[in-house]
Amino acid sequence: MRIVVDAMGGDYAPKAVIAGVIQAIEELGVKIVLIGLEDQIKKELSQYKYPSDSIEIIHAPEVIGMDEHATVSIRKKKNSSITLGVNLLKDSSYDAFVSAGNTGAVVCAATIGLGLLPGVERPGIGLVLPNLKRFGFLIDVGANTEPKPAHLLQYAIMGKTYAQKVLGLTEPSVGILNIGEEESKGSDFVKEAHKLLSEQVSNFIGNVEANEIFSGKCDCIVCDGFVGNVMIKVSEGLMESASTLLRREIKKSPIALLGAMLMKSRLNHVKKYADYSEYGGAPLLGVNGIVMISHGRSSPKAIKNAIRATKREVEHKINASIIEEVSRHLL
Amino acid sequence: MRIVVDAMGGDYAPKAVIAGVIQAIEELGVKIVLIGLEDQIKKELSQYKYPSDSIEIIHAPEVIGMDEHATVSIRKKKNSSITLGVNLLKDSSYDAFVSAGNTGAVVCAATIGLGLLPGVERPGIGLVLPNLKRFGFLIDVGANTEPKPAHLLQYAIMGKTYAQKVLGLTEPSVGILNIGEEESKGSDFVKEAHKLLSEQVSNFIGNVEANEIFSGKCDCIVCDGFVGNVMIKVSEGLMESASTLLRREIKKSPIALLGAMLMKSRLNHVKKYADYSEYGGAPLLGVNGIVMISHGRSSPKAIKNAIRATKREVEHKINASIIEEVSRHLL
Repeated sequence: MRIVVDAMGGDYAPKAVIAGVIQAIEELGVKIVLIGLEDQIKKELSQYKYPSDSIEIIHAPEVIGMDEHATVSIRKKKNSSITLGVNLLKDSSYDAFVSAGNTGAVVCAATIGLGLLPGVERPGIGLVLPNLKRFGFLIDVGANTEPKPAHLLQYAIMGKTYAQKVLGLTEPSVGILNIGEEESKGSDFVKEAHKLLSEQVSNFIGNVEANEIFSGKCDCIVCDGFVGNVMIKVSEGLMESASTLLRREIKKSPIALLGAMLMKSRLNHVKKYADYSEYGGAPLLGVNGIVMISHGRSSPKAIKNAIRATKREVEHKINASIIEEVSRHLL
Repeated sequence: MRIVVDAMGGDYAPKAVIAGVIQAIEELGVKIVLIGLEDQIKKELSQYKYPSDSIEIIHAPEVIGMDEHATVSIRKKKNSSITLGVNLLKDSSYDAFVSAGNTGAVVCAATIGLGLLPGVERPGIGLVLPNLKRFGFLIDVGANTEPKPAHLLQYAIMGKTYAQKVLGLTEPSVGILNIGEEESKGSDFVKEAHKLLSEQVSNFIGNVEANEIFSGKCDCIVCDGFVGNVMIKVSEGLMESASTLLRREIKKSPIALLGAMLMKSRLNHVKKYADYSEYGGAPLLGVNGIVMISHGRSSPKAIKNAIRATKREVEHKINASIIEEVSRHLL
């Protein structure tokens, strides 16, 4: 298996990316193709020892910045690590592409470069989230901020397939994110999508409210990409602020400080709970190739975990299953 | 000051409501008008001692359930505690209405019964949220799930006025919730609202991402009611799940259990952080009367805090300031 990794993607690239790649090689036994500015990649790699056949380098002379406009940057920088990296997947000797770079640019490059799977009109970004029971799947978290109801149906089918094949959940339940449980709740868009899903998706449990996301009530939750993106960011911000607040509180009392020391590892476990980089990246579903988007602030560990999740997708041939399920439902 | 309280509103009504009202009378020195099923109110009140002139009871023979359809219930139950309670505000001897009942029904009854302030086209529900610096204000968290850009402008003006007059913030900053900081990000709706706000609102800082909500980057954040509602619910669900997880973790180790005991009060402080019932209810802004919506699961303390926040609104004559600011900007 050869996984292409965008060496230039993310706030701490190429350093954190390459450190993560080295970890992945050691732990996962994958072969990595690093794409990006060759000089910088070689310089970083020189710090590590690794089997020489485990890493290949492909030079890409351009870099798309984290804040660049997605479509404009893809149009202008045809030789960026993102564009060239995605396009490598057209050659069957490359199995997947991982990037912690500009999310919009990855979505755009993959859609244009690889095309969409039959029956899929728009790609969606999924996310594996821990809940109190097991793992759940949320889609879309930011690819499509103004979807049509039919897109949500496609996300439901793709997300359910992912939950089943990659996460190993048996007959996963599917729900639609709404602001109330009753069918009459929410916007016209949500109501229309609700109707489509209830007609076409088995084990559809209807509306799910946002406070249920972490409870494990539903295995696969679909929503529009604007709301999905807001949800993961608010969770991230809340956990960060809560830890800051806890540190402040602990400083106020020596007894609390002692208490915190005694329960440090348990507290860290909880803190990681909403840190989705812990669970690997966010798969871009619906494009004709395996593309994984990792958090812009990915640490080496997050990069390694994203590679691990990508490897699992390749092994489970997720796109073959998605094609089958979409065609069974929609074509 | 006489504050009308819906005795039948909320999951634990009338018990929790009346317990909260008794606390409010003792601590805040307000006079309360309890509206609802007289028999039940009297039965609950019989458990408490309080100055006889501090509580008045008004009988409302109908009760709107928490899950009833908002507009249908308001049309059918003209003698509910919500409808009769809201309409009392037309008489100037009643200053405000507080309900932990069906949010949609309160919004609907208030809009129909009291009408809107001049220049306001749709009411919005605000929420005072703690952040790492001070308090911030979020609007709308659920009144208007499909707003027009102009509604967001109205929310911005009302929210900023609230932050200034009621929260006491000097020249509060205003931002619009989006999925990226750059102006090019987000849906057409958000971009159009961004343009309106940048033209008409002073101290407008542009797009704010959801992870910044608790950091204190912005004092008043506007968003559509669907997204706002999802945000507060996901925060609520995350904090609940994190506490459940922490309890599970602590049980695994006697040392961690000891640690938790030593830092219990500090942990509780952090847990309360995202529990917005701690900070009082959610003001319904834009209607011609002071209406406060309290969380459906309000405890007695949450009811008391909602009454406290309502009292502050009455004292600061928030609607006079909103009328002035809206007319200065929009009329």
